Amino acid sequence: MKSGHSSSDISRRTAIASMALLPALSSALLSTSAEAQATSGAPLASWNDGAAKQAILDFVRATTDQASARFVKPEDRIAAFDQDGTLWVEHPIYSQVVYCLDRVPAVVEKDPKLKNVEPFKTVLSGNREAIAKLSLHDLEKILVATLTGMSVDDFEAEAKKWLTNAKHARWKRPYTELIYQPMVEAMQYLRANGFRTYIVTGGGQDFVRVYSNQVYGVPVEQVVGTAGGTKFGYHKDGKPFLTKEPKLLLNNDKAGKPEGIHLMIGKRPNAAFGNSGGDREMLEYTGAGDGARLMMLVLHDDGQREYAYGPAQGLPNSKVGTFSQALYDEAKKKGWTVISMKNDWKRIFAFDEKA
Amino acid sequence: MKSGHSSSDISRRTAIASMALLPALSSALLSTSAEAQATSGAPLASWNDGAAKQAILDFVRATTDQASARFVKPEDRIAAFDQDGTLWVEHPIYSQVVYCLDRVPAVVEKDPKLKNVEPFKTVLSGNREAIAKLSLHDLEKILVATLTGMSVDDFEAEAKKWLTNAKHARWKRPYTELIYQPMVEAMQYLRANGFRTYIVTGGGQDFVRVYSNQVYGVPVEQVVGTAGGTKFGYHKDGKPFLTKEPKLLLNNDKAGKPEGIHLMIGKRPNAAFGNSGGDREMLEYTGAGDGARLMMLVLHDDGQREYAYGPAQGLPNSKVGTFSQALYDEAKKKGWTVISMKNDWKRIFAFDEKA
Repeated sequence: MKSGHSSSDISRRTAIASMALLPALSSALLSTSAEAQATSGAPLASWNDGAAKQAILDFVRATTDQASARFVKPEDRIAAFDQDGTLWVEHPIYSQVVYCLDRVPAVVEKDPKLKNVEPFKTVLSGNREAIAKLSLHDLEKILVATLTGMSVDDFEAEAKKWLTNAKHARWKRPYTELIYQPMVEAMQYLRANGFRTYIVTGGGQDFVRVYSNQVYGVPVEQVVGTAGGTKFGYHKDGKPFLTKEPKLLLNNDKAGKPEGIHLMIGKRPNAAFGNSGGDREMLEYTGAGDGARLMMLVLHDDGQREYAYGPAQGLPNSKVGTFSQALYDEAKKKGWTVISMKNDWKRIFAFDEKA
Repeated sequence: MKSGHSSSDISRRTAIASMALLPALSSALLSTSAEAQATSGAPLASWNDGAAKQAILDFVRATTDQASARFVKPEDRIAAFDQDGTLWVEHPIYSQVVYCLDRVPAVVEKDPKLKNVEPFKTVLSGNREAIAKLSLHDLEKILVATLTGMSVDDFEAEAKKWLTNAKHARWKRPYTELIYQPMVEAMQYLRANGFRTYIVTGGGQDFVRVYSNQVYGVPVEQVVGTAGGTKFGYHKDGKPFLTKEPKLLLNNDKAGKPEGIHLMIGKRPNAAFGNSGGDREMLEYTGAGDGARLMMLVLHDDGQREYAYGPAQGLPNSKVGTFSQALYDEAKKKGWTVISMKNDWKRIFAFDEKA
């Protein structure tokens, strides 16, 4: 696998990079629709009153009031949302990694000699402790084997099936129900005010596209993610199709996020939402534009209703979705808003009792 | 420069590939607006009655009539347009190549040692015959030197300036006025019927984005072109910016067109318009979908009002915008519509007298 980036930071970048290697075309599928869950009446109903909610309201007022000096033309209204840890649960591990691990038996069935080859052997053993200890190099092998080599259509069908059936171990619900209701409301509120909402994720572009429209109301063309190449070819009957290749085109994490935004959107967002060091450059890039700006970071400080991790503000450290104290300090210094999951969100999920 | 493709076809692919290496953020600029030129009243006013005009009308009727079995939901209505030779003049050479040659003196001024180095020396000589004989390898050097190494913002400013001032040698008009009025009307008619119009060009994505909105009414996020990487960095004052890198991400020509469409749009177009072998795979990919399909190829058979080249149908051969007899035969076999510039278009440019 090739990457245009060199980085010694092995935490999220490398693992997520390998996920790139996927595709998906349409967007119809899955459980509960975000739009159907829309709260009627006052906007941002699942947010407690406070600085975070107010920041969203103020930003929308400034950018949509024609009398405002900071008015933004509707065609230029862009809001970018990280996914993992910002729109849905990312602990204990990214959903897409679970997908890849779950796909290993099918891959081995098609290529039985892998049965006794590492890291596939360990994954097949079901030994959770051993699986958790797999190296990033091993994980990359698994991602490449499970996300590339098939047609774009076959990948989409497989991912759709998994998303319908797989359940998160803690909540016993499909991953696509583990989305943060307050963030869905923020997306809906921005869209109702003429913003186009983009997902800008380190996760695989094609994976997220499989459910983005149904779950978030974000059409596939507004999903910017880590992306691999495809290869055009023909079936025996002459019908053309695309195959997912093990070639990384866009490593959409950290500095790769503004680079991906430029490639895929070509406009600087007015608003950006994230939750970890992977979103820092996207928020910096968003903040460097003129006029009204909204930069927000979700802090997972709610171990009871979701998870608590940082290590910012003395929260437990985490390899997945690291929110460092340095990032927290930068946010404070630059006027970004840190969302406290515990204090700012009335409820976390759509299935939680309404407040 | 790296490319994921290997091809011995040196004609258009390699030259255009090198163009990738550019950027541009906003979209305001330039002379006459396509929307302002919209003909009122009957659609497709600059088209003569005939099979080509009828194919567009029939396609729109089938896809927008809710009672039609071939109705397409508005959010899935996508029409893809090649640019060079399909939307604007590509002879005697692609406008972007002229841009790159025109940029050489400025590049040499910044790096004077290039003055006596080939191919820059030849370009500076102004000897047209010698310039026309430059090898593709030399051309690549020029494209890399003129399209990369600057910030995205600086590139956009330079390209904008050039587009405002440069004129085509034959018509003595800005390149952005040399757009085909019938195609602009086709885009407008499709948009008026809920289609989103995308430009899918072998030309540089960032170059085309500089004028796409103003000239074609296509916002920058709907421009899919040959694209190079960018690199995120910081100015001394800490403000982030993107630099255009000499690294090819997407070679958006031939098989690269469906690959680019998948990467950037994620949906298969319902309609595709092209004019050369570089568009074949895009039309095949578009045609392989279900429901109503519209595939059209512009044949340049009008040496008097524009240019005549093929070599299809006995027209003169051309290295730029080659339309082979094999492509013509494939079009006939698959029911694609070949547009005769001479017979199907009442007028070519907006500045032509109305019929």
